[in-house]
Amino acid sequence: MNNDQLPSVLPETDRTRHRRLREQGSLDRAQLDAVLEAGFVCHLGVVVDGVPMVVPTVYGSDGRHLYFHGSVASRSLVASPGAAVCVTVTHVDGLVLARSVFEHGVNYRSAMVYGVPRLVTDPEEKLAGLRRLTEQATPGQWDYARQPNRKELAATALLALSLEEASVKIRTGAPDDGDGPDAALGIWAGVLPLKPTWGAPEADPLLPAGIAPPPHITARGGA
Amino acid sequence: MNNDQLPSVLPETDRTRHRRLREQGSLDRAQLDAVLEAGFVCHLGVVVDGVPMVVPTVYGSDGRHLYFHGSVASRSLVASPGAAVCVTVTHVDGLVLARSVFEHGVNYRSAMVYGVPRLVTDPEEKLAGLRRLTEQATPGQWDYARQPNRKELAATALLALSLEEASVKIRTGAPDDGDGPDAALGIWAGVLPLKPTWGAPEADPLLPAGIAPPPHITARGGA
Repeated sequence: MNNDQLPSVLPETDRTRHRRLREQGSLDRAQLDAVLEAGFVCHLGVVVDGVPMVVPTVYGSDGRHLYFHGSVASRSLVASPGAAVCVTVTHVDGLVLARSVFEHGVNYRSAMVYGVPRLVTDPEEKLAGLRRLTEQATPGQWDYARQPNRKELAATALLALSLEEASVKIRTGAPDDGDGPDAALGIWAGVLPLKPTWGAPEADPLLPAGIAPPPHITARGGA
Repeated sequence: MNNDQLPSVLPETDRTRHRRLREQGSLDRAQLDAVLEAGFVCHLGVVVDGVPMVVPTVYGSDGRHLYFHGSVASRSLVASPGAAVCVTVTHVDGLVLARSVFEHGVNYRSAMVYGVPRLVTDPEEKLAGLRRLTEQATPGQWDYARQPNRKELAATALLALSLEEASVKIRTGAPDDGDGPDAALGIWAGVLPLKPTWGAPEADPLLPAGIAPPPHITARGGA
């Protein structure tokens, strides 16, 4: 993490100001970093011919940039360099089950990053960004697998989005109608937690016998 | 499911045509329905002042429409009626760990729906849409919790997005480099599955003693 040149409090802009449910909003950079580091799939929003397009894609973050990639031919990426994007990362942590339907909600952590992505052309940054992207999804994998060769690097467009303008929204805890009139209804209320769970690694059917999954994979997967 | 008026094959438009990785694309409406029904949080893309904005929000789907809601005052919803949106629903099913970093990827199911949402004003459709939205996240909850009153309904904006223009992308199975030159490297390759797991229900600390979670909640949660 090398974010000493970015302020620890995110700037409040017209886009990142939290207008509603302020208690859920945060401009704390540490919270932004935590939300980004906890995931590896984001939703990239671009405008194509005046219409929004929201594409799921993998990313990596290093406290200064969010890196995402794709084929040089990909449609949403072609639209990105020079054009504004919004990248959103969301973790759904549970259902908030209140006494009333109206107070139902979701516990979540979400980050929205705004900016104009930069096409990464410096070979060193490109390798570092791709490494970050690979490691964020699967720590230990970059040094284990075969790293990209020249041809593969040339076929990959890596984009860097600065983490300068971003906002975070987080909701945790119980429903909000526990001290209102609905509390007398005798309806159960609480949270049903949800979390992503890794399963046991499934070997490629084409894998020759005798090649075991490496510890960085088995340590993560389930029974 | 009442989708007899929508064609079983989704129309191929300039936006829904699959340009890359065609094997992953589908215009099969049954697959679209399945992807939508498997989730309850979508990423809503809107254009605000020419800039994309991607907001996570809960939704419900009934085979004809995708319903999403929010406060009447919400910024992204204000921009939505009359304006084009893209709603994307993504399920991440696992990491595809290939021999080479370049062939790494994600197993996923994703749907993108394009269109101009319609503000639901008919009281019957509004109730039905909110019911669908509640039931999709928590089956059984609409009839268990207190349903919205007039004031709450008036404070809720419900939007309906027709499922006419949409596309689906799905990737399943092993990495693609099992029969290439990298197969000889002796590197383990396969899939690390990922799935959302419900935990045990956590009662609101303000809940009076003696109110047990209902069966539709306990049946879903973990031990």
